[in-house]
Amino acid sequence: MKRLTGLIAATYTPFGADGRLRLDQTPQMVEHLVNTGVNGLYVCGSTGEGMSLTSEERRLVAESYVKAADGRLPVIVQVGHNSVAEAKQLAAHAQAIGADAVSATCPSYFKVQSPQLLVDCMREIACGAPKLPFYYYHVPLLTGSLIDIQQFIQLGGEQIPNLFGLKYTDTKLNELQQCLKLQNQRFDVVWGCDDMILGAWASGATGAIGSTYNIAAPLYHQLITAVEAGDWNDARALQNQAIEMINVIGTFPFHSAMKAILGMLGYDFGTCRLPQRALSSNETAHLRELLEQVGFFEGFVTR
Amino acid sequence: MKRLTGLIAATYTPFGADGRLRLDQTPQMVEHLVNTGVNGLYVCGSTGEGMSLTSEERRLVAESYVKAADGRLPVIVQVGHNSVAEAKQLAAHAQAIGADAVSATCPSYFKVQSPQLLVDCMREIACGAPKLPFYYYHVPLLTGSLIDIQQFIQLGGEQIPNLFGLKYTDTKLNELQQCLKLQNQRFDVVWGCDDMILGAWASGATGAIGSTYNIAAPLYHQLITAVEAGDWNDARALQNQAIEMINVIGTFPFHSAMKAILGMLGYDFGTCRLPQRALSSNETAHLRELLEQVGFFEGFVTR
Amino acid sequence: MKRLTGLIAATYTPFGADGRLRLDQTPQMVEHLVNTGVNGLYVCGSTGEGMSLTSEERRLVAESYVKAADGRLPVIVQVGHNSVAEAKQLAAHAQAIGADAVSATCPSYFKVQSPQLLVDCMREIACGAPKLPFYYYHVPLLTGSLIDIQQFIQLGGEQIPNLFGLKYTDTKLNELQQCLKLQNQRFDVVWGCDDMILGAWASGATGAIGSTYNIAAPLYHQLITAVEAGDWNDARALQNQAIEMINVIGTFPFHSAMKAILGMLGYDFGTCRLPQRALSSNETAHLRELLEQVGFFEGFVTR
Amino acid sequence: MKRLTGLIAATYTPFGADGRLRLDQTPQMVEHLVNTGVNGLYVCGSTGEGMSLTSEERRLVAESYVKAADGRLPVIVQVGHNSVAEAKQLAAHAQAIGADAVSATCPSYFKVQSPQLLVDCMREIACGAPKLPFYYYHVPLLTGSLIDIQQFIQLGGEQIPNLFGLKYTDTKLNELQQCLKLQNQRFDVVWGCDDMILGAWASGATGAIGSTYNIAAPLYHQLITAVEAGDWNDARALQNQAIEMINVIGTFPFHSAMKAILGMLGYDFGTCRLPQRALSSNETAHLRELLEQVGFFEGFVTR
Repeated sequence: MKRLTGLIAATYTPFGADGRLRLDQTPQMVEHLVNTGVNGLYVCGSTGEGMSLTSEERRLVAESYVKAADGRLPVIVQVGHNSVAEAKQLAAHAQAIGADAVSATCPSYFKVQSPQLLVDCMREIACGAPKLPFYYYHVPLLTGSLIDIQQFIQLGGEQIPNLFGLKYTDTKLNELQQCLKLQNQRFDVVWGCDDMILGAWASGATGAIGSTYNIAAPLYHQLITAVEAGDWNDARALQNQAIEMINVIGTFPFHSAMKAILGMLGYDFGTCRLPQRALSSNETAHLRELLEQVGFFEGFVTR
Repeated sequence: MKRLTGLIAATYTPFGADGRLRLDQTPQMVEHLVNTGVNGLYVCGSTGEGMSLTSEERRLVAESYVKAADGRLPVIVQVGHNSVAEAKQLAAHAQAIGADAVSATCPSYFKVQSPQLLVDCMREIACGAPKLPFYYYHVPLLTGSLIDIQQFIQLGGEQIPNLFGLKYTDTKLNELQQCLKLQNQRFDVVWGCDDMILGAWASGATGAIGSTYNIAAPLYHQLITAVEAGDWNDARALQNQAIEMINVIGTFPFHSAMKAILGMLGYDFGTCRLPQRALSSNETAHLRELLEQVGFFEGFVTR
Repeated sequence: MKRLTGLIAATYTPFGADGRLRLDQTPQMVEHLVNTGVNGLYVCGSTGEGMSLTSEERRLVAESYVKAADGRLPVIVQVGHNSVAEAKQLAAHAQAIGADAVSATCPSYFKVQSPQLLVDCMREIACGAPKLPFYYYHVPLLTGSLIDIQQFIQLGGEQIPNLFGLKYTDTKLNELQQCLKLQNQRFDVVWGCDDMILGAWASGATGAIGSTYNIAAPLYHQLITAVEAGDWNDARALQNQAIEMINVIGTFPFHSAMKAILGMLGYDFGTCRLPQRALSSNETAHLRELLEQVGFFEGFVTR
Repeated sequence: MKRLTGLIAATYTPFGADGRLRLDQTPQMVEHLVNTGVNGLYVCGSTGEGMSLTSEERRLVAESYVKAADGRLPVIVQVGHNSVAEAKQLAAHAQAIGADAVSATCPSYFKVQSPQLLVDCMREIACGAPKLPFYYYHVPLLTGSLIDIQQFIQLGGEQIPNLFGLKYTDTKLNELQQCLKLQNQRFDVVWGCDDMILGAWASGATGAIGSTYNIAAPLYHQLITAVEAGDWNDARALQNQAIEMINVIGTFPFHSAMKAILGMLGYDFGTCRLPQRALSSNETAHLRELLEQVGFFEGFVTR
């Protein structure tokens, strides 16, 4: 696989009013993402509530996105699980259904105690899909992992044959730069904080995975274009627009608000599962107002 | 079900050298626990590495312990999972196989944001086994939960028909006392810190779930007997012996050391799964020496 | 000095409406404490807002309490400071004015990185008052210290000539027991959590330092009497009364609520300094109501 | 005062072998900083161990730097203290001796509980030096503050007449951008992470305060020049050189290693005070080797 460049949407998982999967909604969403220039799909990550699904549901969601993508853009399936054994089975399934890459968080109920143990966990999972590139999903705010990411990637590069890179979801650009530079830029380090994509691009990133690329890819494309043209004032203004949008969403439980926005845009994805809570109808109305105030409906989605 | 009184062993899960379940080891272990006066089994908890097993394995382990217990002592099956839906299925399975109670941690990848959401999660799981008593497993050090436990149990008592009590694994005796006292002692609050069982008993606890009751129930029984006889100096000396044993074990990765001790005692349970690491043979030898120094083999297990 | 036994009040610092010291209030407060059977005074600790005072004010407050105590009960002066040098000067002052012991937290802006460095800090401070017993004030929730307390006290016992003991403000009774037992009970380990004094006494503690002993020493004396008589049901009921009182106070900013209670009892100590906030008059009225509901004014203070 | 642009050195405090101030070393250091193009001095911050000094020492150090600067570059004096009253006195002193600005952390022993209380604290301190611009020093990793910085600066802008800006020492570029943009760029938000200065400049920062500008200002100047010329590849390479230098230093206790480097460069500043520890002579030799390996002595300091 080539490196992941540009915007990779961390996809949402569609639920019906009864809380069950509603996978008939997937194709329409994928068309929207293709049409807005998204370059890849990251399925069953934090955004997709992978951890809140049963393993059977995770398989169905992954199949649904692989099928809808139909080879037009790469699909990375996130298989992280407290049970490494279960994660390995999900990785094998991802390979079997034709996914383009596998990614996984570390176990987080029991905290991983050393870089070597993190490598051991990720090697076991990556071995479940030996023909696919593997991305470790570094998201310490959610996993509580304290393992140094540079130590992991150096050790992992020696011991995990298909270690291809990272989904790096933290704010330390110095770590990003060091990981990008290692071993003559061997690893594909994909940025995971939508509200700092400007700084990440300045620091050398060329790909980003995030949830708001589902709803505002055109805005971020303008930002990247501005950076590439050296128009940093424009880029900062566009990043600020994205930050304001994100701050509005973050006023509410984040992913539930995102799903409400998907609904406003015509994609009926329901709301989030427990332990996340749904927005009330009042909250949804307030969210819409706040989004209107920051100009969201005038071009973020379609410009 | 009656309340859980006395010592409840948080059981270990037996693995072979290949890392697979070796459930032929279960019955011998259960005989040992029955013989040392243990009053119940808490299966697939943190001690049993429930989170590190596949759901299929969790079912097999639960069945194995229910069968071996054979009605002689109650079996509580821990079903906590990041996926509430998966946890609910495990709860239903526990009821179907004749377990005596169900228990669950909260999801921990996504942090539970309010007491009401914690109640929502636990009600959903408890509804999977409506005929069984349900114990919320409060273990904030592992789940990262910041929810106030008194608020949870008050709300949960109104909204979860089969909420029976807590496995309380924290060190705040004031919370223990308040939870015990609520609504005319309605809830069964079972203590989860082996090294503070003395203080817990002083504060009103009458049941405890823990991992070291697998290997040293006689010691703890002596402690409880001393407390009941009002011999607090003896009780403190016995608690100190337990603390010293626990400190020796905690010099190493805790549960891996415990499994090594099971091996020393003739129970071939293998070692822990990832992300926990096995002890080296040198470490195991050192562990044995340290245990000898604190007198472990002279009576903790069999006196 | 003999060991600190019974109840040691962590004293409050009296301020006027202008926020300045009002040390004319000290003697009346000390009479109250003597009359309610308090056995010692711990001055300028967290309760006394030592960290929020200027060094000059800390000296004046310490003098005020030493003078008012007039040898009737021991006065321990807390001198912890981010500047070890400043703390050492405060320790020397405490010795010069006739205090009975010195105590200090560790620096907390820069976190102490090893047990040896903690010993180095405490030795430097303790050397400022070489003739007085020194108590390390262990309060990890406020200092953020991660240093193992058993390692500290073992190392410190060798290297700090006047290390006498600990003010142990954490909830781990296993640590308490181990610290009490060390080197044939060499160290005076004084308990710091008022809402767990029952468990601490069961575990071997014989002295406690706390803020609510300013307002409810008679209640705690009854509790201790019950424990000594072996009346554990009574002791638990009394501990529960104390917990309910503490929970009421903790509904508000804790020390500001305590100062409001001092006012209700006729001791005009003003309110807390920044960064703590004062209670509004509505909050104070509500506090009084809640205290009435738990029976506070019917005997906690004077029985 | 104009805004702080370019590189502001967070200065070190010179100690002799006896641990006392050795202020005769200040002028030579200031000449070095002037000669390497540093644009300002931030005195008695974390780098300068302000919190580890007595108040008297803080005054002497501030005077020493103000005198040595002699109006050639602005001097900002950091006065943060657990005692707001003490901090206010230090602020008044800074104004009296002719400092150009005052800065302060929040109290951290007692955690600040709300944005309004943080404003209250900072207003009180800023009022001690009403004629000087005031910068809040946001450094949550050291203070443990959880207060939202945007809420603080908005509230503070209304209530603190001389609030001029922030020393922003965190890695969230989205917060940086939002703080920079507020109220038509009213506030001077100065960046505090040397290893992310590239991303900060991309995001709109134009000034930075840091410790490694004491020893490698020429390297960072090249970086800024490259950014201004649009040579982002060069800028990234230079940032990477800085990161490698910082990683080498961070292999050891950071500020003690920095002081050892000052010694290598001919500035006899001694080592750090407790609770920080000194490097051993072996460590110092190893530090020198590692610095040589990353090319530190070939141009970082003087190019």
